[in-house]
Amino acid sequence: MRTFILKANTAITSPDFSLKDLPGTGGRIDLLCRFLNSAFLLSHGIRKDVRVFITLYGKPNPPKTIHFEGPKLKVRLNPDERSTSLILKKALEVGKDLREPTKEVEVFPGVYVSNMTFEDVVRRSMKDSTLYYLVEDGRPITEIEFPQNPAFVLGDHLGLGKEDERFLEGIAEKVRVGRRSYLASHVVAFVNIWLDGM
Amino acid sequence: MRTFILKANTAITSPDFSLKDLPGTGGRIDLLCRFLNSAFLLSHGIRKDVRVFITLYGKPNPPKTIHFEGPKLKVRLNPDERSTSLILKKALEVGKDLREPTKEVEVFPGVYVSNMTFEDVVRRSMKDSTLYYLVEDGRPITEIEFPQNPAFVLGDHLGLGKEDERFLEGIAEKVRVGRRSYLASHVVAFVNIWLDGM
Repeated sequence: MRTFILKANTAITSPDFSLKDLPGTGGRIDLLCRFLNSAFLLSHGIRKDVRVFITLYGKPNPPKTIHFEGPKLKVRLNPDERSTSLILKKALEVGKDLREPTKEVEVFPGVYVSNMTFEDVVRRSMKDSTLYYLVEDGRPITEIEFPQNPAFVLGDHLGLGKEDERFLEGIAEKVRVGRRSYLASHVVAFVNIWLDGM
Repeated sequence: MRTFILKANTAITSPDFSLKDLPGTGGRIDLLCRFLNSAFLLSHGIRKDVRVFITLYGKPNPPKTIHFEGPKLKVRLNPDERSTSLILKKALEVGKDLREPTKEVEVFPGVYVSNMTFEDVVRRSMKDSTLYYLVEDGRPITEIEFPQNPAFVLGDHLGLGKEDERFLEGIAEKVRVGRRSYLASHVVAFVNIWLDGM
């Protein structure tokens, strides 16, 4: 199982965003759609061995976590942003009045929403996976022998904050792809293809 | 300079598609938007050393070719599909009444539309670049020493036809990424990051 964890610093935590302006009204919710696309989609079909947690920290009600569980996923994930944003909208609708701190509510088969924090998600992933933090100054992933269940933590266009980085110290090895600073969706596409083996 | 050439078998060749349904009304024009995103975008800024040709073969007026020239590109390329689809819509509008077979018309600085065929684009690219065809049964790109100006040919979700493949025989080396069949945008993201160096 591969896990990808994205901290989305500005992504809206209510369903009140417009499909006509995902970047603006959604606090860059378009980025989340492409992230899911890169994590799950193959040319014909989806990856069943992938799990994604997106932790949303934008207004008005952070944090919200949306969790996609590959082996249980029944909702159709299409490649385009608009259709994926509708799944996220529904998840945020269901999560609107959720009060429990870590309880997950199923939105569609294999899609869950909760109030879990970024730290909650990382702690939970540590239990069954080996953590890696994808960041510019890490070791090249081409030099690493990955274990059975790697979990990759990524920041969005703003990156992780100092506090998040301190939290990850000692629990997640820093790794990198390429030599420049890339969009999260490109990094995930690269990692997936690399892990498939060349 | 890196060149990416996409043959989009079903992409609409008129501006008459709906932003509310890019995949359906645009003949998978959403795929083109993600392709451009992967070819050009870095986390902060765009790649200036990239050139993209998209040859559109859908109804009603194929072929149309939209060409993005990195070094001259002045129009803002945002990561989201919707805003990129508006650039494509404008290019198809300008190209609507174009009659000359290979003349390019500038749509925005660095963006051109023409009636060039897939073969025209490949022949033109051969003049200053070394051609590669990205396909499942090629040699792993990790084994290849790429020259200064590689040009990569890719198919869309339908792939290239037998005729296209015959045309490329002997002029483009077959190369691959990974071990599965991937979305064109993921392949381009991988190739770009790989060529940046690990």
